[in-house]
Amino acid sequence: MKGIGVSPGISIGKVFLKEEIEIKVEKKNIESSSDEIAKLNDAIEKSLKEVKSIHEYALKNLGEKEAEIFSAHKLMLEDPEFIGLIKGKIEDENVNAEWGVQEASNNYISILENMDNEYLKERAADIKDISKRLINNLMGIENISLSTLEEECIIVSKDLAPSDTAQMRKDKVLGFVTEVGGRTSHTSIMARTLELPAVVGVKDITKAVKSNDIIIIDGDEGTIIINPTQDEINAYKEKRKAFEEFKNKLKELKNSKSISKDDHKVEIAGNIGTPKDIDKVIENGGEGVGLYRTEFLYMDRDKLPTEEEQFKSYKIVAEKLEGRPLVIRTLDVGGDKELPYLEMPKEMNPFLGYRAIRLCLDRVDIFKVQLRAILRASAYGNVKIMFPMVSNLKEFRDAKQILEEMKSELRAENIPFNENIEVGIMVEIPSAAIQSDVFAKEVDFFSIGTNDLIQYTLAVDRGNENISYLYSQYHPAVLRLIKMTIENGHKEGIWVGMCGEAAGDERLIPILLGMGLDEFSMSASSILKARYTIKNISKVEMENMIEEVLNLETPLQVKQYIDEKITFKH
Amino acid sequence: MKGIGVSPGISIGKVFLKEEIEIKVEKKNIESSSDEIAKLNDAIEKSLKEVKSIHEYALKNLGEKEAEIFSAHKLMLEDPEFIGLIKGKIEDENVNAEWGVQEASNNYISILENMDNEYLKERAADIKDISKRLINNLMGIENISLSTLEEECIIVSKDLAPSDTAQMRKDKVLGFVTEVGGRTSHTSIMARTLELPAVVGVKDITKAVKSNDIIIIDGDEGTIIINPTQDEINAYKEKRKAFEEFKNKLKELKNSKSISKDDHKVEIAGNIGTPKDIDKVIENGGEGVGLYRTEFLYMDRDKLPTEEEQFKSYKIVAEKLEGRPLVIRTLDVGGDKELPYLEMPKEMNPFLGYRAIRLCLDRVDIFKVQLRAILRASAYGNVKIMFPMVSNLKEFRDAKQILEEMKSELRAENIPFNENIEVGIMVEIPSAAIQSDVFAKEVDFFSIGTNDLIQYTLAVDRGNENISYLYSQYHPAVLRLIKMTIENGHKEGIWVGMCGEAAGDERLIPILLGMGLDEFSMSASSILKARYTIKNISKVEMENMIEEVLNLETPLQVKQYIDEKITFKH
Repeated sequence: MKGIGVSPGISIGKVFLKEEIEIKVEKKNIESSSDEIAKLNDAIEKSLKEVKSIHEYALKNLGEKEAEIFSAHKLMLEDPEFIGLIKGKIEDENVNAEWGVQEASNNYISILENMDNEYLKERAADIKDISKRLINNLMGIENISLSTLEEECIIVSKDLAPSDTAQMRKDKVLGFVTEVGGRTSHTSIMARTLELPAVVGVKDITKAVKSNDIIIIDGDEGTIIINPTQDEINAYKEKRKAFEEFKNKLKELKNSKSISKDDHKVEIAGNIGTPKDIDKVIENGGEGVGLYRTEFLYMDRDKLPTEEEQFKSYKIVAEKLEGRPLVIRTLDVGGDKELPYLEMPKEMNPFLGYRAIRLCLDRVDIFKVQLRAILRASAYGNVKIMFPMVSNLKEFRDAKQILEEMKSELRAENIPFNENIEVGIMVEIPSAAIQSDVFAKEVDFFSIGTNDLIQYTLAVDRGNENISYLYSQYHPAVLRLIKMTIENGHKEGIWVGMCGEAAGDERLIPILLGMGLDEFSMSASSILKARYTIKNISKVEMENMIEEVLNLETPLQVKQYIDEKITFKH
Repeated sequence: MKGIGVSPGISIGKVFLKEEIEIKVEKKNIESSSDEIAKLNDAIEKSLKEVKSIHEYALKNLGEKEAEIFSAHKLMLEDPEFIGLIKGKIEDENVNAEWGVQEASNNYISILENMDNEYLKERAADIKDISKRLINNLMGIENISLSTLEEECIIVSKDLAPSDTAQMRKDKVLGFVTEVGGRTSHTSIMARTLELPAVVGVKDITKAVKSNDIIIIDGDEGTIIINPTQDEINAYKEKRKAFEEFKNKLKELKNSKSISKDDHKVEIAGNIGTPKDIDKVIENGGEGVGLYRTEFLYMDRDKLPTEEEQFKSYKIVAEKLEGRPLVIRTLDVGGDKELPYLEMPKEMNPFLGYRAIRLCLDRVDIFKVQLRAILRASAYGNVKIMFPMVSNLKEFRDAKQILEEMKSELRAENIPFNENIEVGIMVEIPSAAIQSDVFAKEVDFFSIGTNDLIQYTLAVDRGNENISYLYSQYHPAVLRLIKMTIENGHKEGIWVGMCGEAAGDERLIPILLGMGLDEFSMSASSILKARYTIKNISKVEMENMIEEVLNLETPLQVKQYIDEKITFKH
């Protein structure tokens, strides 16, 4: 059977079939809505306790970023709007609490699922997770925790809630297979973090296997073999061995430099969202942080973080990096990232709207606090500042001027900071790439943000399933903008990095090396593989291919060209 | 006093103060909701009659495009959702019909006004217009029509509904001034079509004047002078004379060619939305149609137009042009233009979504019908086909292949068409401009769509008031893309036009001429002025400035450079 491989690796083991107990919630008329609300309050309390303990477990085993979703679950369970909606149903319609919960959640879920946006659709899974937990607690059904599994097994299930996945113990669970899901679901992301082989989207797998069947799953190719022959088992053991060997080979690269076959050195850095993420970057041999997304500091809370809070978060990362570079990106909210306490305008096209530096130059009060915090942290490490979504030189100049004001303030207050802190921009709007010659004269570095650059250059919202097929990092126009940016940066003697997803794409790394990219910043888990790739190619050879690549006609041709011309084995 | 000049020209005359009768709708409890609904039905019928007659008047005096808004008013009065909402209020809350209408409209208006989008905000004005009409008819208050004015006057009012403006008689109304409104409101657009001087956004003007005061309005500068001195009157009469003389000078250009001082010939064409618009283009000396927006054929109806309907619309325009070129753009819906009968997906960022060629390549059934209709019309004039929103060469090839299939069909059916019909693309997505060298090898022409090109290149939704200050046709990055597209087109020997608003911008025309743009397509009313501009500049002189302009740093610098270096008097 075939599915979507969402987390690489091969597992062979016994099936644990996690059957979905289909809970039918019946609508009942109740006599006392206050009794029902008391029941609801108890269930909320019990659910909150459960979610808190999952949150703690996840924090320990998965890290801050992955655990964050359970903060969101907690917030949801305390959300006056959501809970009010449930209570309203109970009181106005005189129905049982279970029914109220189901109705209220379906309300939210249907809104989210109707949005043609993969990200929001995935958020529906969170609501389902919470609502199921609440209903179980109302009905006295125990919420099964996968943390109690006694035997090694491969979990097979229709679906796995994020809370199911978060509780899997790596020493018991060998991998999992589900019928639904996609690459970007929380469950898939967690599988990669846990390094558990996983295949999703395997239709009818729960009907095809029973518990204790032997199964092979290949999380690269998405293959499933049920009750394999001995030959198949041997073949996959072989493959698994190769995979493990490659993983070990990668581990050996942890402390080596990122140098191509012909001795060209680049920097491979990590992207982080929270201070805790830095451990993973260092563990994986990151040579710095090319992108610290500071939004997370502002999210899941009800007011702005203070200068002191921010300063501490930035300082701890700067110190842990021990002199390696740390690029802190100033606040990039707006777009699909809202801060409820900021009252941001409803927009028709948020990706083309009031976000990032646009918001910061408007809400200077917020911007100043962050700039002071970053400057203060610069006394404790190799900190650089980066402004996002700059479309126009004036925006950069305005932002820089505010930065200079903050420097004067700190100077007057005798607070230490790095007077020569580097200040750069994200190149993620086409105009910045097209005018990179002009920008390069004033900024200290560029970091190319491919995710947005591709969206705008091709006019494609990649979260929109109807047209995401048009989104491609191999589009020759995108590659031309990248080349232009690197070249213009180098002409003015500044370094050029990349912190979009393309920087970690094994297929694109050779091309980027050939173009002269200086810094590759990616998720921690991709760093060693990227270093391996760099070590196995020659920059000069790649350089010679660039012109040909840029003159190809379509994204598909670029992809095929790379696959044909650039080969190196794992 | 000062306001926003939205329609040029100078008027001097007596004030007609159109006082807003502030109608207070009171909430009353009613006994029989069926009586109330009968009253409502009568009022709807009366309102429909009024709107129909305004629609006819507008069709005759304003043209099809401007009259269209009254089709929308009619549809609204027949809209089951809107009317149902009103009836629901009456029935569920036992309230009077006036109150129901007011509540239902406020509902719609508040949604529209809360959207941070100028276009949608303006749509709220339409709802207000309809709702006021309905309430007046319910209360037995006559809807005053400005078509009955007996004396020459300048209308001063708090606000003017589109239906007010549409009924103004050009021989009686000399111009108007309002307290609210903006450049893009229907009322302002109509003023320009009627060539009535108009100033909007003049705070407290209704308090500052009374009927029969003498007033001067300057629709260029937005100036208002109340009870002017004789000197002022003389000065403005002088200015008006100059304006009239310039207008006459322009009229003389109707039949002349568009040739620069140094004998370089370009083509100045018109943009049209409906077959009727072609008359205005010809009247204003248009040398062809550079953009026929076919969306209007699909809008304000409840099903797709047939091949025959489309064929007729295209043919009539082709014939009227008598051999001059007609560029027909295939369907560009999606984005902010929805077709209710197509069930289009709700999108988070419609401008980066499922629209134009993306929709057509998905809904090939719709696309084929249109291509057949255009091909058939090509037997009756100089018709060219243009595909919108092409981001990728494969899209062009796919579209072209479908076109070839349609040619085969027509050939087999012995239906005449132009075998060598030119097929081009809109260059409105950055990737198309960046890859214009590649596209130029396969397409027959480019037409640069600046409105979208600017939006994507700068990542700015220009309808979003919070950030529209970043939208600029003078952004050097945008000008570089335009230059690149023209150059690449010419290298492959194809012609390059422009059909975005920038093509009619007097400030930009010299720059575009210098870059070598072959065709300028604009709204009919701008054609003669553009020709005048072309005739008064030298291409070689402009050519010599281009490099300098492209190396300027900011949009503001470009604007200032043009204003300083390129001067010619009206």
